[in-house]
Amino acid sequence: MSAGERAGFEARVSALPLVDHHVHGAFAGELDRAGVELALNEASPDPVPEWMTQFDSQVGFAVRRWCAPVLDLPPHASADAYCARRAELGHVEVTARLLRAAGVSDWVVDTGFGAESLLDVPAMAEVTGGRAHEIVRLESVAERLAASGVSSVDYADTFLAELAAATRDAVGVKTVLAYRCGFDLDWRRPDPAEVRAAAGRWVDSGQRRLTDPVLLRFGIDAAVELGLPIQFHTGFGDRDLDLHRSNPILLLDFLRDPRLAEIPVLLLHCYPYHREAGYLAQAFHNVYLDVGLAVNFLGARSSALVAESLELAPFAKLLYSSDAWGLPELHHLGAVLWRRGVISTVGRWIEDGDWSAADAERVITMIAQDNPKRVYRLR
Amino acid sequence: MSAGERAGFEARVSALPLVDHHVHGAFAGELDRAGVELALNEASPDPVPEWMTQFDSQVGFAVRRWCAPVLDLPPHASADAYCARRAELGHVEVTARLLRAAGVSDWVVDTGFGAESLLDVPAMAEVTGGRAHEIVRLESVAERLAASGVSSVDYADTFLAELAAATRDAVGVKTVLAYRCGFDLDWRRPDPAEVRAAAGRWVDSGQRRLTDPVLLRFGIDAAVELGLPIQFHTGFGDRDLDLHRSNPILLLDFLRDPRLAEIPVLLLHCYPYHREAGYLAQAFHNVYLDVGLAVNFLGARSSALVAESLELAPFAKLLYSSDAWGLPELHHLGAVLWRRGVISTVGRWIEDGDWSAADAERVITMIAQDNPKRVYRLR
Amino acid sequence: MSAGERAGFEARVSALPLVDHHVHGAFAGELDRAGVELALNEASPDPVPEWMTQFDSQVGFAVRRWCAPVLDLPPHASADAYCARRAELGHVEVTARLLRAAGVSDWVVDTGFGAESLLDVPAMAEVTGGRAHEIVRLESVAERLAASGVSSVDYADTFLAELAAATRDAVGVKTVLAYRCGFDLDWRRPDPAEVRAAAGRWVDSGQRRLTDPVLLRFGIDAAVELGLPIQFHTGFGDRDLDLHRSNPILLLDFLRDPRLAEIPVLLLHCYPYHREAGYLAQAFHNVYLDVGLAVNFLGARSSALVAESLELAPFAKLLYSSDAWGLPELHHLGAVLWRRGVISTVGRWIEDGDWSAADAERVITMIAQDNPKRVYRLR
Repeated sequence: MSAGERAGFEARVSALPLVDHHVHGAFAGELDRAGVELALNEASPDPVPEWMTQFDSQVGFAVRRWCAPVLDLPPHASADAYCARRAELGHVEVTARLLRAAGVSDWVVDTGFGAESLLDVPAMAEVTGGRAHEIVRLESVAERLAASGVSSVDYADTFLAELAAATRDAVGVKTVLAYRCGFDLDWRRPDPAEVRAAAGRWVDSGQRRLTDPVLLRFGIDAAVELGLPIQFHTGFGDRDLDLHRSNPILLLDFLRDPRLAEIPVLLLHCYPYHREAGYLAQAFHNVYLDVGLAVNFLGARSSALVAESLELAPFAKLLYSSDAWGLPELHHLGAVLWRRGVISTVGRWIEDGDWSAADAERVITMIAQDNPKRVYRLR
Repeated sequence: MSAGERAGFEARVSALPLVDHHVHGAFAGELDRAGVELALNEASPDPVPEWMTQFDSQVGFAVRRWCAPVLDLPPHASADAYCARRAELGHVEVTARLLRAAGVSDWVVDTGFGAESLLDVPAMAEVTGGRAHEIVRLESVAERLAASGVSSVDYADTFLAELAAATRDAVGVKTVLAYRCGFDLDWRRPDPAEVRAAAGRWVDSGQRRLTDPVLLRFGIDAAVELGLPIQFHTGFGDRDLDLHRSNPILLLDFLRDPRLAEIPVLLLHCYPYHREAGYLAQAFHNVYLDVGLAVNFLGARSSALVAESLELAPFAKLLYSSDAWGLPELHHLGAVLWRRGVISTVGRWIEDGDWSAADAERVITMIAQDNPKRVYRLR
Repeated sequence: MSAGERAGFEARVSALPLVDHHVHGAFAGELDRAGVELALNEASPDPVPEWMTQFDSQVGFAVRRWCAPVLDLPPHASADAYCARRAELGHVEVTARLLRAAGVSDWVVDTGFGAESLLDVPAMAEVTGGRAHEIVRLESVAERLAASGVSSVDYADTFLAELAAATRDAVGVKTVLAYRCGFDLDWRRPDPAEVRAAAGRWVDSGQRRLTDPVLLRFGIDAAVELGLPIQFHTGFGDRDLDLHRSNPILLLDFLRDPRLAEIPVLLLHCYPYHREAGYLAQAFHNVYLDVGLAVNFLGARSSALVAESLELAPFAKLLYSSDAWGLPELHHLGAVLWRRGVISTVGRWIEDGDWSAADAERVITMIAQDNPKRVYRLR
């Protein structure tokens, strides 16, 4: 590859519109320094202690490196300078700049967590001049149902009807089973009597958070029945979940169900179990994966992670996502870091003669656009 | 290292005859496009769906890069052109060219799966002008015994006698315990009454596939008794197995048995648990490993895997294998990719001053030839 | 970065005084070739067999590369030449040279294993002209207590008093729970009656090695009560432990205890579960990690490991250690290889523009000195 060819390759990948197939809304309001620090830690809900700053982390360094210039600061501007500039510009301007700079054409938005403080689906489209699509969280539908005081006898049918209604304009569903009981459960499909009994126990309990394995499993079955793509949170997330019990390989018994053959199952994040996820994407023609979230939080190490994601999974089974939540820096960083990761990884393969340049750009475009458009039937 | 020294290093490693210590026969008949596609997916038994091609994967790209020139096509020839050329040359010519191009002096052939469609041991030697040696699959011996209607009382003694007979000209045995029950079993040695009872249940069941943990365990014990090297399938394979239950670290309780001290135990594939396997190879002087199969399926990423295999395991404990089955492209690719992997990994260490050039070539030769010749007592 | 800036960066990192926050004493006596070979294998207690040498391993090559020059030999001197020179200089001189060459200002010494054959804490300071601090092993305190014939009724109070006395001049404690029962235990705090019953059973048993989960758990609780930093052996170690049951992610239930919030918990080694450990260091503000021990045993691959350790953990949560035990080569190598690892990893990030040079040196200094000084309150 000549220097000119290399520059052309980098320029084209940098300008390629992305489908961010798993993302949340950006914050709808102003954020102070403590709020930014908290948003730079995915795994802990506790305030960052005084003797450290979360800016001293891979994601913090990546914000200072890649987001500072979008706010007219030099790369590696100090955290203080960065937060001051953020406040000066105001959240509307900061959000608009960072989201547009991501070069995302389509946001596939999970609306199931903290929606009250975030831009909603139409707002995400409006702010960015792109398109936005909704993903419905299965557990949210169930919890609304329980709050409505549904009877145990009606639970199953009502859930199905509610899910069908809620997903009329959605492109898929998501389950946070990982946060509610882990994947090491009995994957046998519950029969109606078990669902009824579990629904009765839950509604009577007064608890509003769904953690019952039978009902969680039933919700996933309902999505299968409706033929919707199903996203699974797997791996990296906050410490509420047992990381090792959200290893996607524990979905094997579920994935072996032949009824699933035509239902796309999308394994989100996966880190540090992305090699197991890649294996599943080869083993089951309906299984897909991304390494979103981790790409952001690994910063300068994200290129290594992107490389590791390009192992066993056929290229038709990989997608891009940021899994940004709230902080618009994360919507931007995901795109920047993923582009850098594929440029450095695949660029090296082109230079070493392992891949042709034409194949390389074709595969990158599959991951960036073609695969998610096919899976979610985006127009 | 000067450019000339570097070129000499690369040339010598590229020409080094290899012992492929775990491999199967190449297909004995013609293969159509669908057959090639299926053979390029290790993990799924299902036909590749219409909306994708398995050529769009690391192994598919590696075939187009490294096998196309062996069939007189340019590197990165299209999948269509490649399959057309394959058909034009015919399987006899394609197989002969690819197998010879691998530069393998000794094939250590596992004859236990799908033998009817594959070249047998003498044919592998004949086609390549090399030597071929047999590995006997323990479960095949047991299943022939069950099919013969052996009585439960005679099972143990007959199995031992049959295994001794079957391995008279073999260099070792292999177990596919990973496919039959996983490694999280009770590793205590079964007593004769338990073996008798299990044999009775199995033979009476009419089932021909051996999945009983007591009899699987007993088969391994019989191999220990005969003093034969034992290969274990671990890690990456098809979705019949539970990947996480074939993690070689789950063999710890078995390996701690002091009776095993002089019996070579060879951990095959190991991916993505090759670091655990490297640990076992340091912890037990009789344990060896390879990263075969995964080297092929990782294509351009295989150099990273080869590097990861060079961590905790002493260098006397590493072996080369392709684990090619059927498709002769895989017999060739394993060798090409492993050579590239050691050249890039170890070459870098030489250039950085971490290893001396003399040590580097010595270690590569140990893995390629010396270790397997010692373990299997190849002449 | 200009060549001059790069050279300055490398020189400053190479000269940076380190706190080795987890280390053991160097051997106090002479060592023959067999002894050196044994010390170059961490995982196996068996003598190295005749048909191999443990020098043919990453750590063996690293000794010949990096320790030979300290003993006036050329890099990559043969193992024979190296051992001969070692014997010629004598252990006092060899130890003094290697320990001083490590550039360590502070040794944080675990005195709990094999102390009779090792330099003690004051001797480590004296030989190196540095400072040395003590870490007390919880299980050693318990075992001295059991040997003293304590009554079960007095066990809990006496243990607390003994631990307080033993740690008066110590900077923290360590637990080898990983070696005694693994982390998959019931993390509920035992009540006094359970402790009493377990103490009675243990003392009566005549067994002196503590393996009872209730008493192991109680020992950790006692350290929490005293507010001491607690080191956990996790991951890589000798084959006595079940590697997978010492995965630090299995500490989740323990770490979720809010009483721990202000108690530093230091995850040692972690390999090959260092990514899980990095996650815990982000998820809990009191959790820290190192990749000591593995850095030594991975030799030329240790730079890749150092890079992998720089992922999810905030930079305030990483520490340097060698985990050297006995062989003074290991005290030296840990420092050499860790410095090389950060120079190559972080140096690349500076060159690629991912990190600023100023940030890079600041983070390296945090890991080398600032973090351990803060955690252990070193003066």
